[in-house]
Amino acid sequence: MDSATLHEEIESFFESAPPLKDSAKITDKLNQFIQCDSPSSEGKKRRVVCVTSGGTTVPLEQRCVRYIDNFSSGHRGAASTEYFIKAEYKVIFLYRRGTCQPYCSSLPEDPFLECFEVADDSDFQVRQSHSEAVKGAIRNHHAAVAGGLLLKLPFTTIFEYLQMLRIIASSMRSLERHAMFYLAAAVSDFYVPWKSMAEHKIQSASGPLDMRLMQVPKMLSVLRTDWTPMAFCISFKLETDTKILLEKAIMALKKYKMHSVVANELLTRKEEVTVVTENRNISVRRDKTRPGSEVEDPLVELLVSRHSTYIKDASLSK
Amino acid sequence: MDSATLHEEIESFFESAPPLKDSAKITDKLNQFIQCDSPSSEGKKRRVVCVTSGGTTVPLEQRCVRYIDNFSSGHRGAASTEYFIKAEYKVIFLYRRGTCQPYCSSLPEDPFLECFEVADDSDFQVRQSHSEAVKGAIRNHHAAVAGGLLLKLPFTTIFEYLQMLRIIASSMRSLERHAMFYLAAAVSDFYVPWKSMAEHKIQSASGPLDMRLMQVPKMLSVLRTDWTPMAFCISFKLETDTKILLEKAIMALKKYKMHSVVANELLTRKEEVTVVTENRNISVRRDKTRPGSEVEDPLVELLVSRHSTYIKDASLSK
Repeated sequence: MDSATLHEEIESFFESAPPLKDSAKITDKLNQFIQCDSPSSEGKKRRVVCVTSGGTTVPLEQRCVRYIDNFSSGHRGAASTEYFIKAEYKVIFLYRRGTCQPYCSSLPEDPFLECFEVADDSDFQVRQSHSEAVKGAIRNHHAAVAGGLLLKLPFTTIFEYLQMLRIIASSMRSLERHAMFYLAAAVSDFYVPWKSMAEHKIQSASGPLDMRLMQVPKMLSVLRTDWTPMAFCISFKLETDTKILLEKAIMALKKYKMHSVVANELLTRKEEVTVVTENRNISVRRDKTRPGSEVEDPLVELLVSRHSTYIKDASLSK
Repeated sequence: MDSATLHEEIESFFESAPPLKDSAKITDKLNQFIQCDSPSSEGKKRRVVCVTSGGTTVPLEQRCVRYIDNFSSGHRGAASTEYFIKAEYKVIFLYRRGTCQPYCSSLPEDPFLECFEVADDSDFQVRQSHSEAVKGAIRNHHAAVAGGLLLKLPFTTIFEYLQMLRIIASSMRSLERHAMFYLAAAVSDFYVPWKSMAEHKIQSASGPLDMRLMQVPKMLSVLRTDWTPMAFCISFKLETDTKILLEKAIMALKKYKMHSVVANELLTRKEEVTVVTENRNISVRRDKTRPGSEVEDPLVELLVSRHSTYIKDASLSK
């Protein structure tokens, strides 16, 4: 597809999308977050990463009863956010409502009801077994938000996600090479254009249901070339079939001009991933000798180091 | 469709479904919950209601990355559960993972992180503003579970939901007229049969995606006639188009031999519903003069009273 056609498709996607609620408020929050710069411990300018997390939904009806969803717990994005903050990044966490939150991974599925017990008629206490997890979650989360290191922005639909990503990119443009995009969200490939969507609930009168879904225009290339041309961009490729995984990751790297593509396979994604770059593929594994260790720890470490090189290269060439 | 064809369709749906994990454990839990009978405050045999809540998902791939989902916050089911327990029912709460939980409706969206604040380096406390909501949620939830009045069973897919509903129905069969089904879950009308499903992630190579979905066989009629023929059954009808709502609710009442159908319209469903019965339609409204009142309060009250009549009618005719 030529670039003019892609731009037309993207324009038409945004034009036909339902307007984003609170877009002015979101822009204000973002500008405040990005501008309020507390230098890092080494006295340097802070880097900012936008971590996207969780799956986007595609409504099948305008008054939405049914939708197509992309499976994603949001664990990758939430855990990575913690390691980026540890590495002194400011994180814009663009996450699907209801998915995993930073600092909450060691809590049970229903934390609010499982972590507490009734002490007497009028009070309650944290269960001993969850005490450390609960305290850690609350303490670290509050420290990150209060310290101006974490801004959380929720989305649900593919329309909201792409509209917000565009606003974030535009706010981060001025950061130039200090900006990073870590695009871990599971974004829908197909959608039903808003205007051609059924207004009311699709009726299940009789027989099978036939549906035609259109491709979502690929925004990665405009993010790289137009929205934030200087930012360091990492995208993710998830497949269930290992045979085609690396090949598709390499294709994505070239096609969208990403700085790295993280290739992961559905069943082993918590154990290992492959970071595909222009020159080589780097396999990153969880440290199995340390209980509770996560693959996001060495993954973020590697990307932070590559981001440092990317920033330095620019200074050298000045 | 004749009854033989429906039975064949249902058999083939269950045969082709992926096996339910932990089905023996679920059956044990159910039997223990139902058999452990603490008489009500009037010394009568407890009634048991199965409340279903939230939407089911339809996987589009066997190693599930994409799925179709039915929108439902689960608020109706969670709130109704509270009123059934107040009315001294035992509740089997069959809910979609991640949806609203009983006693949690007055908590914020991200309760775990929004309700607490850090007190000093090593501890935290409940924010004053959320103190009552948090205490109430923990106290009431624990009282219901510890008192043997609430059993929570989570599901995600349409396959899990229908398999679990069948097990629950079979466990509740012996309760005869003391059993009630309150089917508030948003169940998918269409699905992709497991065997014809793509094993791997659907590729977004080029062009639009065409999909054919089959109708989920209607289990309501076999629930009524075969699984638990004596139970008092309430189903729900949600539409976005008021013009067809009542007509469709009346059709469902007759077709599935329900004792009542609760008709609700997407936009006004928290304010009012219509209970459609064989003889008349009863409009039920939230008491607007009481702040924080819910339409589930008078709705459950009405259905409990109709259930009482249903139980008494049987005693009279003996």
